[in-house]
Amino acid sequence: MQLLASSLAGAWSAGSGSRLPLVNPATEEVLAEVASGGHDLAAAFRHARTAGARELAGLSFAERGALCGALAKAVSGAREELLALAIANGGNTRGDGKFDIDGGALTLSHYAELGARLGTGRLLGDGEPIQVGRTARMAGQHVWATRRGVAVHINAFNFPAWGLCEKLACALVAGMPVIAKPATATALVAHRLAQLFEPVLPPGVLQVLIGPAGALLDQLGDGDVVAFTGGSATAHTLRAHPRIAAHGVRLNVEADSLNAAVLGPDVELGGETGALLLADVVRDMTQKTGQKCTAIRRVLVPQARLAEVKDALRERLAAIAVGDPARDDVRMGPVATAQQLADVRAGIARLAAATEEVFGGAGEIAPLGVAAGKGYFVGPVVRAAARPMECAPLHEHEIFGPVATVGPYGGDAETAAAFVARGAGCLVSSAYSDDRDWVASFVAAAAPWAGRLYLGSAKMAAQSPGPGTALPALLHGGPGRAGGGEELGGERGLHLYMQRCALEGDASVLKSLVG
Amino acid sequence: MQLLASSLAGAWSAGSGSRLPLVNPATEEVLAEVASGGHDLAAAFRHARTAGARELAGLSFAERGALCGALAKAVSGAREELLALAIANGGNTRGDGKFDIDGGALTLSHYAELGARLGTGRLLGDGEPIQVGRTARMAGQHVWATRRGVAVHINAFNFPAWGLCEKLACALVAGMPVIAKPATATALVAHRLAQLFEPVLPPGVLQVLIGPAGALLDQLGDGDVVAFTGGSATAHTLRAHPRIAAHGVRLNVEADSLNAAVLGPDVELGGETGALLLADVVRDMTQKTGQKCTAIRRVLVPQARLAEVKDALRERLAAIAVGDPARDDVRMGPVATAQQLADVRAGIARLAAATEEVFGGAGEIAPLGVAAGKGYFVGPVVRAAARPMECAPLHEHEIFGPVATVGPYGGDAETAAAFVARGAGCLVSSAYSDDRDWVASFVAAAAPWAGRLYLGSAKMAAQSPGPGTALPALLHGGPGRAGGGEELGGERGLHLYMQRCALEGDASVLKSLVG
Repeated sequence: MQLLASSLAGAWSAGSGSRLPLVNPATEEVLAEVASGGHDLAAAFRHARTAGARELAGLSFAERGALCGALAKAVSGAREELLALAIANGGNTRGDGKFDIDGGALTLSHYAELGARLGTGRLLGDGEPIQVGRTARMAGQHVWATRRGVAVHINAFNFPAWGLCEKLACALVAGMPVIAKPATATALVAHRLAQLFEPVLPPGVLQVLIGPAGALLDQLGDGDVVAFTGGSATAHTLRAHPRIAAHGVRLNVEADSLNAAVLGPDVELGGETGALLLADVVRDMTQKTGQKCTAIRRVLVPQARLAEVKDALRERLAAIAVGDPARDDVRMGPVATAQQLADVRAGIARLAAATEEVFGGAGEIAPLGVAAGKGYFVGPVVRAAARPMECAPLHEHEIFGPVATVGPYGGDAETAAAFVARGAGCLVSSAYSDDRDWVASFVAAAAPWAGRLYLGSAKMAAQSPGPGTALPALLHGGPGRAGGGEELGGERGLHLYMQRCALEGDASVLKSLVG
Repeated sequence: MQLLASSLAGAWSAGSGSRLPLVNPATEEVLAEVASGGHDLAAAFRHARTAGARELAGLSFAERGALCGALAKAVSGAREELLALAIANGGNTRGDGKFDIDGGALTLSHYAELGARLGTGRLLGDGEPIQVGRTARMAGQHVWATRRGVAVHINAFNFPAWGLCEKLACALVAGMPVIAKPATATALVAHRLAQLFEPVLPPGVLQVLIGPAGALLDQLGDGDVVAFTGGSATAHTLRAHPRIAAHGVRLNVEADSLNAAVLGPDVELGGETGALLLADVVRDMTQKTGQKCTAIRRVLVPQARLAEVKDALRERLAAIAVGDPARDDVRMGPVATAQQLADVRAGIARLAAATEEVFGGAGEIAPLGVAAGKGYFVGPVVRAAARPMECAPLHEHEIFGPVATVGPYGGDAETAAAFVARGAGCLVSSAYSDDRDWVASFVAAAAPWAGRLYLGSAKMAAQSPGPGTALPALLHGGPGRAGGGEELGGERGLHLYMQRCALEGDASVLKSLVG
């Protein structure tokens, strides 16, 4: 049995102690093992603080961007191999795997271009010079400076490639050394990426801990950053961690998100805009088996369209073949782990007590090509809430699987926005309408509650990636329940790893510093 | 005895329960009292969420800026009265009081102008449109949208006017209703401001709780923001507060800061740049009796200049008359409370164990115009650290009083920056040099550790406000020990009260939303 090693302190470390299995979630076959601990994490932090920091400090934004470009090539060059690992260890269909792996390469490429554009300086200017004295001679100039410390990346199980790449791309171009901790259950892809990335990067720039975090956070100190993607319970633990509090460690959280999709009152289901809503809902329910932090969970449609929407979802979801994702005829695989399956089933049961069935019962399914009783399968489930604003479980519990709930409203933009807000902060929500006044009212009231608002319309339907796709150029993160974090968004994504500093002094001195 | 009421839920509430005295820290005379509790804080939050939010939502940036302008006028119109309260209740000299009160009016005026410039829209654009699809039709546009919730402002005792005004100005222009809680000990100024502001602002826009916070934070909910200025122990409590964690409340902290000042190796003390360092150190030690979060605490000078710097500080500090700040001949008053005095004395004792005396002993002083044994007085104290990088108490404990420590170094910019970094994050630090290469090296290495870097030079010396002055146009806040927060900085100061949101859709729709 393969024992996955971690890349720490310049060497591959197998760790020690008991071993944890990594399985194929469709077959429950054990694919590899990881050690439960036994790594010298203090040495890893020292390596990052010395070798990693020194190497990065010697490189400009453009040179660090070039490293991102080389990493993107490494991902693309091993695409088929990585896809096979994603299918085996992630329950991914080939399409799911592409979404993760190609998304990772795309994000690295985006930051390669950004690095090139930022050029050869070491400080990033923030805004224009400001006169702060009697004359223009006494001035201020804000800049962003790379933080001195280690960026610790704690990633979620659902995107082992994209999660590793998107966090790494931002930290790398910003100039901070990284220690990444992929989720254990789906670590085969991340482990292979760590192997592929190692020869590309200077020493200490990227270290990857495969397996449990252990005492990772106990090594945190002044200047460090933690970027976390995962559940809100773990996020609370992180916020209260004594090292994070005592050392003012910057913490970025991307946590639970009950993303909403709203159909405008002007939209016919048969038109492009209506078809876009349906396609986006079905894609978000089934892609990655609904295990996307950006997936639509709550759907609000005008009362007059409710029956039609239900029928359309029934029809489309009935055509989704669920089973072993290694098969070409399968459109949706299992969820990633036994625990995820138990959580999804518990979530469906909680939701079922407050809603009516539309499709899929409690997710019972006979998966294609799988031995009876094996695999972590749950079928697509649609529920309906007669009074959606008052349905507490709908707004308060994220079900991380192929489950969505529809409900009716009167069609006014204010209620549509209030429905978004009812989730208490989300990564993304979407509205589908070709009525610009309605959209403007919706955006004004919904924007405070979402990190991204996707505005579906007939004009962009043909080239839309859907709300479930986090793009490198746009902010990824959301307020409140979603954790209050910000990732990506082009240059904005670097700021987590930099300190904004107001320089104050003689205007010509400031100009020479920023260029 | 006057009982100070709080302005809550549209009425003046005296509270109930035991009473706490507000004293004159020079004479220990009781000036007024506040109730220890008994306010209906749930009603205050409801008032903000309903009346306050509704009123602000009906106003544009420009209209909210106009309110700031009216508040600035209210402050200036009552200047003499406010100065008298600052002198009596704050231990302020007239100059100290001006710094606080005029600073508050100036900050309000700055945000009045900013609001006018931001105009009539409701969303603030963030960056340019971004193509995210195959063609320019599929686009992204980041915006800032006003958060729906209440801004809770917890202010420090040292700036009862400026602290209230600077936080209020940002929240008001951003469009969030405010509940402010000034520090109890020096609340006479804030209480009078609350009286002056009440007729200027629409209902629910500003409420002021005079006295202990009680269960204020237990009212926090989705969309709320807390901006805190104070000690790091309280900041830790806030970070772990269950309502803040459970509701994703945004928390901005401005806490302890061990600000450094460094003299470049090129500087003669007799020139403009050297004189600026000396003037800034003496001002920061004595203005507000050293009770400024931005005050210089740590001074690093080239070995060759050390004796000269010590002599100059001795000479200048010996000329500072300490006593009852109501007297015209007094340059420095007492610290604000008995507790502050005890803390400063304990800090001096801790520092004394690791340093040598330069001036002022342990701060013993015979204050002018004060009855024997009365008042919370401590004289200016300068200590010297022979090996400043290794002097732990110097870098780890903020002494919030008229105390500074000097130490020598070899003159290299890297050591100068490492000295700044040794404070583990500060609001501001300063360097005094006319050697641009030296300054560039210093800035590159020190900027990650400071929210502001003040670069003293001969060219700006004549019009410099000194590092201890937080300007509305420049960022105020700092990494690490300083809390990791950001306030002010012009438009940047609004962002705490707004959510950044990526709008994604048809380019012409996005353009119509942002204008």
